[in-house]
Amino acid sequence: MTFAFEIAKSDPTGARRGRLTTPHGAIETPFFMPVGTQAAVKGLTQEALEELGAEIILANTYHLYLRPGHEVIRKLGGLHQFMSWPRPIVTDSGGYQVFSLSGLRKITDDGVRFRSHLDGSEHFLTPEKAAEIQLALGSDIAMVLDECIETPAPRDKAEAALSRTVEWARYARAYFLEQARRNGNLPQLQFGIVQGATFADLRRESARRLLDLDFPGYAVGGLAVGEPHEITIAMTAEVTPLLPSDRPRYLMGVGRPEQIADYVALGIDMMDCVLPTRAARHACLYTSEGRVLIKNARYARDQRPIDSNCLCGVCRRYTRAYLRHLFTAGELTASVLATHHNVHFYLDIMRQIREAIEFGNLANFSSEMHARFAAGPA
Amino acid sequence: MTFAFEIAKSDPTGARRGRLTTPHGAIETPFFMPVGTQAAVKGLTQEALEELGAEIILANTYHLYLRPGHEVIRKLGGLHQFMSWPRPIVTDSGGYQVFSLSGLRKITDDGVRFRSHLDGSEHFLTPEKAAEIQLALGSDIAMVLDECIETPAPRDKAEAALSRTVEWARYARAYFLEQARRNGNLPQLQFGIVQGATFADLRRESARRLLDLDFPGYAVGGLAVGEPHEITIAMTAEVTPLLPSDRPRYLMGVGRPEQIADYVALGIDMMDCVLPTRAARHACLYTSEGRVLIKNARYARDQRPIDSNCLCGVCRRYTRAYLRHLFTAGELTASVLATHHNVHFYLDIMRQIREAIEFGNLANFSSEMHARFAAGPA
Repeated sequence: MTFAFEIAKSDPTGARRGRLTTPHGAIETPFFMPVGTQAAVKGLTQEALEELGAEIILANTYHLYLRPGHEVIRKLGGLHQFMSWPRPIVTDSGGYQVFSLSGLRKITDDGVRFRSHLDGSEHFLTPEKAAEIQLALGSDIAMVLDECIETPAPRDKAEAALSRTVEWARYARAYFLEQARRNGNLPQLQFGIVQGATFADLRRESARRLLDLDFPGYAVGGLAVGEPHEITIAMTAEVTPLLPSDRPRYLMGVGRPEQIADYVALGIDMMDCVLPTRAARHACLYTSEGRVLIKNARYARDQRPIDSNCLCGVCRRYTRAYLRHLFTAGELTASVLATHHNVHFYLDIMRQIREAIEFGNLANFSSEMHARFAAGPA
Repeated sequence: MTFAFEIAKSDPTGARRGRLTTPHGAIETPFFMPVGTQAAVKGLTQEALEELGAEIILANTYHLYLRPGHEVIRKLGGLHQFMSWPRPIVTDSGGYQVFSLSGLRKITDDGVRFRSHLDGSEHFLTPEKAAEIQLALGSDIAMVLDECIETPAPRDKAEAALSRTVEWARYARAYFLEQARRNGNLPQLQFGIVQGATFADLRRESARRLLDLDFPGYAVGGLAVGEPHEITIAMTAEVTPLLPSDRPRYLMGVGRPEQIADYVALGIDMMDCVLPTRAARHACLYTSEGRVLIKNARYARDQRPIDSNCLCGVCRRYTRAYLRHLFTAGELTASVLATHHNVHFYLDIMRQIREAIEFGNLANFSSEMHARFAAGPA
């Protein structure tokens, strides 16, 4: 078996410490995935990701389908070979992007018709097609196509999207298993996605209905899209107890540094977020003391590293004064260095969280993170 | 003596192979300097520059004077410490930038009044001030302030600029030597700059008048600014025989890959150019077969490296198809990878040139480079 998920230890909070094995290597859980939407983590080379100890990244089906095209990537040996990233990759289904980026969306029971945000060309994405694209990309974990709605959503809209997402998951699962049967192997793990907006009962219903489809892993989607953190927590907490404890749980699109441990405490094993990379490009740096807005004039002569407690290559070599200068001067290298540091910070949070779970100490870690980030940015 | 220049070997063409020693290390000559105008080579970290084997870089007085300010950099331990670059640095005087970038220029015998291109603030740059700034920056080699005129220039304008540049060089030299005397040490090498536009006799006159000031090195400026390559060559050839053979010669702002060996054959030891870094950001890659415009659709499925003969980290890992995708998708990482490759290409040309000189074979190398780049970009 090329795939496996083992839980080694649990924390009193409900957090789990384990390992997810894929054909491209094993990943210690819980883990955070840097986002490489278009087969690149913005500002980082694959060498840098390896140096940072990133064990897995997230890429995007919608973007790669439109450009360069999944058939091109298939022809070039799959996504791992295309981007020269030998470690595991998760691909999101593109559902979120179809609903947030593209134009002229018409949703039917079969799929969604949309216009490319790049050239206006028309496309029809079905659950089967999203699965097919991800098989062509050859990611280690593929997500089913889901209908993403705006939050806050009226209940009837949330109900309809939930039902459609479950139906689409059924089509996606059937298609995927048929392909696996034909090819005689299981090339990737396919995850279902729990929806239900901010309605607790709908979240539970969504989870229960997806369980029938027996996915090897489950994601919680449609959260952290503008609702208060308490709601994100509450909705996740409704769902995780229902999900099979022997399968990985992926909370999509989260989160802020101080929130990560909260999600882990709910039994979440996987997360992704553009925050560390996007904030870096906007000169917002994460440190053990909280956020540092490095363009602030107060850093003009600051000879300290970004974070005195950080062991990343940027903190070992460069000062705040230099980083501030690079951002003020609009130098490309500013984004490169800032991204390196922020991704290190997130990966390091996860290392600390995994350690905290092993010592049964996650609750303390979580309080400490909230205290550090309670003040506004410096 | 912390500074030294030794010539180990000459080539029948007139090319010289040697070593320039500075307090921050020795550099094999002839050499090419990547341009780090604002204390950063656009798209490269200092780690990347070290990995590439860059032995020296060029930074700019005008830019660093305006931002972050030379007093800030002095306070932070000088430019080497500020940017964490322990190897040698040359600083250009800012003359070229004052005349090409800034507004409201009024030139007097004492200096030039200009407005910052950043905030419109007014400044007065004198030969002494340019020397003072560079002493504050602590570069290993400083350039005197020169008056740069547009090409083609009328003879009377070229004559006037030549005379003023020589006078400014006199002021700069006197100021520099007085500072060195006061401090009891010679912290950097100060180079004079030969001007004279495209008039052979003015070029010779400029060189002869500067020789009286006994600079430890001489630059040739105001060339490669739009005139045909033959003129650049002819003007340089007028000057180099007049310059002392035991001192380094720096041809400023050159050149295209196939031209580098031509300049070396004239006895040039140092060069700098934004071409490798700027072209990289515009998806123009240099290869042993000539230029590759990587956004071209023909590379969409090309699994070869940028240059099959290249040993750089980018060519060892990534394909043309992936680079094309990154540029087409507007990914930051595209510029990072392309810059890495192009700078490697330039540094490698210099390595080959140094080897060719040692084998007395530079003329052949030069013909080969011209042949490779004779065709247009692919």
